[in-house]
Amino acid sequence: MKILLDSMGGDNAPDANIRGAVNAINKIKAEVILIGKEEVIRAKIKEFYGKEMEEISDRLKIRNATETIEMEDTPTVAIKHKKDSSMVVGFKMLKENEGDVFISAGNSGALLTGATLLVGRIKGIDRPALAGILPAYKSQLLLIDAGSNTNCKPINLLQFAQMSSIYLRNTFQIESPAIGLLNIGTEETKGNELVRESYQLLKEKAEELNINFVGNVEGRDAFSGKIDAIVADGFTGNVFLKTTEGLGKFVKKSLTESFTKNLLAKIFSIPALPAIKRFSKTMDYKSYGGALFLGVKKPVVKAHGSSDALLFEYTLIQAEKFVKNKAVDKMIEEFEKEPKDKI
Amino acid sequence: MKILLDSMGGDNAPDANIRGAVNAINKIKAEVILIGKEEVIRAKIKEFYGKEMEEISDRLKIRNATETIEMEDTPTVAIKHKKDSSMVVGFKMLKENEGDVFISAGNSGALLTGATLLVGRIKGIDRPALAGILPAYKSQLLLIDAGSNTNCKPINLLQFAQMSSIYLRNTFQIESPAIGLLNIGTEETKGNELVRESYQLLKEKAEELNINFVGNVEGRDAFSGKIDAIVADGFTGNVFLKTTEGLGKFVKKSLTESFTKNLLAKIFSIPALPAIKRFSKTMDYKSYGGALFLGVKKPVVKAHGSSDALLFEYTLIQAEKFVKNKAVDKMIEEFEKEPKDKI
Repeated sequence: MKILLDSMGGDNAPDANIRGAVNAINKIKAEVILIGKEEVIRAKIKEFYGKEMEEISDRLKIRNATETIEMEDTPTVAIKHKKDSSMVVGFKMLKENEGDVFISAGNSGALLTGATLLVGRIKGIDRPALAGILPAYKSQLLLIDAGSNTNCKPINLLQFAQMSSIYLRNTFQIESPAIGLLNIGTEETKGNELVRESYQLLKEKAEELNINFVGNVEGRDAFSGKIDAIVADGFTGNVFLKTTEGLGKFVKKSLTESFTKNLLAKIFSIPALPAIKRFSKTMDYKSYGGALFLGVKKPVVKAHGSSDALLFEYTLIQAEKFVKNKAVDKMIEEFEKEPKDKI
Repeated sequence: MKILLDSMGGDNAPDANIRGAVNAINKIKAEVILIGKEEVIRAKIKEFYGKEMEEISDRLKIRNATETIEMEDTPTVAIKHKKDSSMVVGFKMLKENEGDVFISAGNSGALLTGATLLVGRIKGIDRPALAGILPAYKSQLLLIDAGSNTNCKPINLLQFAQMSSIYLRNTFQIESPAIGLLNIGTEETKGNELVRESYQLLKEKAEELNINFVGNVEGRDAFSGKIDAIVADGFTGNVFLKTTEGLGKFVKKSLTESFTKNLLAKIFSIPALPAIKRFSKTMDYKSYGGALFLGVKKPVVKAHGSSDALLFEYTLIQAEKFVKNKAVDKMIEEFEKEPKDKI
């Protein structure tokens, strides 16, 4: 297996990308191809580890790419014109089977455009969407769309529900994943026009499409562990995602300060450290890795824009699992067989 | 001062409402008028406390109202037809100056309809909105609209920003409250149509309307303590609110379980209990009381639907402060003077 890593994308690139790859290489079996400015990457590796890349692992490779897509770049323009950027080169390698999965922490819009234009949508899916995995009570919660499609129609939300069902069934071995619609109340009359119409469409099509649609879900019940996936348009989904992130940060900061308020508090909290660590781990979004672009023909993983070395490491490990599970092949298979089933 | 309490509204009514009022009565100076079925209220008080209402406090009163607006009732129909319901009676008393503030944990839609139809909007405000107060890092965050207007226009968001500025200036003594627009990125091109247009309108009108508009704010930065109010349409705002609630519950559950996983963890966490309590208090949304309907001519407070006795107690205490601060009078004053300022 070959994992393609955009080494120039993200707030902490290329340092965090490179360190993450080096940390991950002995924890995975795949080859990791660092895509970016070869000279820069080689110099960084020498600086960080005092040796050549080849001395670290024979599964660590480089593909030279001289340009970089910046956060300020207009997605379509960047994808069309920066042909030798780490992102475009990565997508082309993925398309031509020179790699099994592409990971990037770069410009989200460009990543979506590139995935759609250069790799292509799965037949039957109008809009690929970003699926993020969040921690939930004794389980996890898949959020789709986590931010790629700001304006959606009910048909898009139906397809998001379908994709998440297929993904959770095949990758998490959840036989009948519970899919909820993110709303502000549980009654079917609640919400704005989009969610009200989407509710009706989901209710109507659920059985035919093998979706275990559990109805409207409010944010306060999303983390109960009873819901496996939550469906929303990309704007609402992203608000949901970033709110959980923001509150998570606030919780950590407040918790740390409560335990280090004064010397006595510090000393008294020492015996409780294992419990505090256990709790922090539950709350650590980072260990859940990157988000997946569901609906494109090959595996594309969006790493968090502010990824550090540790998060890149986790994302690489998760990407290897993603490929092993053949999640995308199964998605293609199910979407292509569907019309036949209906006859 | 007289506080009007809808004693029949909410998931735990009338028990929690009555207990909350009895608990609060010695912590406030106001009179509390319990609105609802007199016989039921009197019987409950006797059952809970073994004495008559008059023996508890001479500031505890009853106004009989024979009907109740249920959660399933259609708001406009209920307000128009259930004329002797605790909610409609409460609004009428408020309008006729038989009380200074009305609190209800009942049907939100009916409460909004009643506030608008029976009490009336402040001149210059198209849509009153629910303003909730959330905890933030070393401070608090005002969220407006927390859920009353599912479909909004940019002018509504501009007015929400104005109302929260006036409110925070007068009630929290924040001279120049920082008002952010809830969005999925900080750049002005981010978001859906509503937020992009609202951004432009806010930018254009901020100086004229004395709004310290700090631009787009992502959920992840909302709790940093740097933002005093966050503006959103009622759908997005409610998703934001309930997501923080949901994550808050999940955090508490996980934290408790981490500290009680086994006997050793339990014992070891004893010395850290004060720190844990300190942290839990920061995270306790309940101590922040109810949400306010800003934009109506008299103070209306929406208590949480699932309020227990403690939450009713907090909400009563907060409502007394709300009246003392003359927040609504100042709102009317500022909105009415504005046209003159513009000349």
